[in-house]
Amino acid sequence: MGLIVQKYGGTSVGDLDRIRNVARRIVKTYEQGNDVVVILSAMSGVTDQLLHSAEEISATPNKRELDVLLATGEQTTVALMAMTLIEMGYNAHSLLGYQAEILTDSKSSKARILDIRANRIKDLLKEKNIVIVAGFQGADAKGDITTLGRGGSDTSAVAVAASIKADKCEIYTDVDGIYTADPNICHKARKLDRIAYDEMLEMASLGAKVLQIRSVEFAKKYNVPIHVRSSFHEEEGTMVVNEDENMEQVLVSGVTHNKNEARITLRKVPDRPGIASRILNPVSAAGIGVDMIIQNTRAGHMTDLTFTVSKSDYKGAMEISKQTAKEIEAEEVLGDENIAKVSVIGVGMRSHSGVASKMFATLADENINILMISTSEIRISCVIEEKYTELAVRSLHNAFGLDAAE
Amino acid sequence: MGLIVQKYGGTSVGDLDRIRNVARRIVKTYEQGNDVVVILSAMSGVTDQLLHSAEEISATPNKRELDVLLATGEQTTVALMAMTLIEMGYNAHSLLGYQAEILTDSKSSKARILDIRANRIKDLLKEKNIVIVAGFQGADAKGDITTLGRGGSDTSAVAVAASIKADKCEIYTDVDGIYTADPNICHKARKLDRIAYDEMLEMASLGAKVLQIRSVEFAKKYNVPIHVRSSFHEEEGTMVVNEDENMEQVLVSGVTHNKNEARITLRKVPDRPGIASRILNPVSAAGIGVDMIIQNTRAGHMTDLTFTVSKSDYKGAMEISKQTAKEIEAEEVLGDENIAKVSVIGVGMRSHSGVASKMFATLADENINILMISTSEIRISCVIEEKYTELAVRSLHNAFGLDAAE
Repeated sequence: MGLIVQKYGGTSVGDLDRIRNVARRIVKTYEQGNDVVVILSAMSGVTDQLLHSAEEISATPNKRELDVLLATGEQTTVALMAMTLIEMGYNAHSLLGYQAEILTDSKSSKARILDIRANRIKDLLKEKNIVIVAGFQGADAKGDITTLGRGGSDTSAVAVAASIKADKCEIYTDVDGIYTADPNICHKARKLDRIAYDEMLEMASLGAKVLQIRSVEFAKKYNVPIHVRSSFHEEEGTMVVNEDENMEQVLVSGVTHNKNEARITLRKVPDRPGIASRILNPVSAAGIGVDMIIQNTRAGHMTDLTFTVSKSDYKGAMEISKQTAKEIEAEEVLGDENIAKVSVIGVGMRSHSGVASKMFATLADENINILMISTSEIRISCVIEEKYTELAVRSLHNAFGLDAAE
Repeated sequence: MGLIVQKYGGTSVGDLDRIRNVARRIVKTYEQGNDVVVILSAMSGVTDQLLHSAEEISATPNKRELDVLLATGEQTTVALMAMTLIEMGYNAHSLLGYQAEILTDSKSSKARILDIRANRIKDLLKEKNIVIVAGFQGADAKGDITTLGRGGSDTSAVAVAASIKADKCEIYTDVDGIYTADPNICHKARKLDRIAYDEMLEMASLGAKVLQIRSVEFAKKYNVPIHVRSSFHEEEGTMVVNEDENMEQVLVSGVTHNKNEARITLRKVPDRPGIASRILNPVSAAGIGVDMIIQNTRAGHMTDLTFTVSKSDYKGAMEISKQTAKEIEAEEVLGDENIAKVSVIGVGMRSHSGVASKMFATLADENINILMISTSEIRISCVIEEKYTELAVRSLHNAFGLDAAE
């Protein structure tokens, strides 16, 4: 007996039959004596359809109104789910973002949760209701609808779990859990039983699309254990939890890759104080996020500056950089879209050295040239030529002892 | 320059092109220097689709949740309309029922508006916004979404117009206005320039489906002039207004018909005090509305009691009546689905007599037998055999001088 928050993604509630399946799963948890709060996404495809309608009206649809439009997706699923549970003979009650008092800032389409006063959720639980909350949406102080960005329902779930002090937060999805690498390119990838919040944060930001980053930040901050698992079968998935001693015995928990970046180099830039910000400020001002930055001093008073951006921002960043290069009299601007970033991640690195050199040696053994390097406390990333991505991931996975037994 | 409320129905906002057309119309009114509040229905067909989904889940979907589901329809149109206006370069702002503070009782699917505190509407108008309000929906004191029943957007529009003291309330629809009879069966029907609230109430309740009855009650109570007109062209439609002297010179304003009733007769009922309520209470208790009731005393202590219900309730009412007949020892129960009700309506009747006899004579001239009669201060209705409906409407239309000039 406990208080359990369950979140089901768009694929899990993709049609009325799947909604019925999920309803049975919810009922099973409820019948075991638990209080249950369910967070739902929109049916798969619905959000894209709505976006498409908006884009037919405007290339840049008004964001406040877009949030009003998108919020209908989750509103539909929570109503259908509550109806289904009621039809099965249970007390169920849907709540929209503003009804669940999910208070956010006013940044349409990427609002952040400021507070959840879960009074109605608690009252409804007391009356033995199964409470169905619309994910992805909240309301600002004026009562305007906001949305939390792609994957925002994960954050809704963790934030609700934190505010009602749930015993656990189960994220049901279309994958089995978190893997040591992408199973599509590394066939020896294994499902992890446990992973630390910090590792998951690095995984998420590097392209493992299972959980929205902010949901993990929230979980870490409020110490909410997340159980990522499949909605299609009953097997255990992966627990995302606080670091413990066992974890540190493992040097590396996973290998990730990201093919969605491109790099830009400004060559022979006059080496003056403040030159990096002179180059990167116009890029940031255009709303383009910069990931890795490397500056190498050359002979004389010249330097090369290289940075990476996401592929979708590549063209924009190139144009801006060419303009800047002209103004600061850099020699030339080089661009490269055919790169990939591979990373090894593990909280074990905090207490062990040698991971970096092992990574470099492994890549060298395969004759893979390293173009850029960046590190955090628990991650080492190398930019390489894109065509070596799969080879690099498999080699590193094997070298760090992550391969599943044959 | 004034303050104008415009309401557009589902056909008028049926797709993105139509939404753009309506947007141009709104902008035209705004550019003339008016403050504009727009109330929108769901795109045509959407409400039925949503109902269909709900009915796949349950034969009797939970009404609270059904309202949550249905409310997405209007939420979608207001967001798309606001986006369209913003894309055209205007300040526009959507409001849902609860955001426009449309406070209703808690009767899901047929809620009544208790109050509209239109503070946000007024604030947005002051900032020169075009305000787009979701019709059909409100919220109860708990903040739960409610809907106002079929055609509820009309009532939303009139209620908003009343609360912000609008100069007029324009109801844009797919017909040109209010006609003296249904043009589909009476080709000489004329569009009325003006009609009194009371006449419109009788028209609406008798099957002229242009305006929701409650919207007219609201308009009458708060003296809001309604202009019913087409969203597809610029011609004037029909003003629904307070009675004036001119109107009384016209004896009859319109002829309506309703084929959607059936009648039930209990024959040879023991004639005791309270017998009518003994028969009709079980019918009402089953949620079935009874329209006309006639009781004729026979020779001895026996009476016949006849009443009409809508065709959809006929089977249910028959079953209940047969049970009652057994209990009170009535001789038999007769049913007839092949009936129609034709009515003549006009505030002129208040000050003139002779309308009833002229109606009866007109029907008699055509050899149409009158099965039941009921009257109000401004209406006379006759139940006849269904097959005579068209003949009766055309004859009455001609007899009361309503035919359009050839």
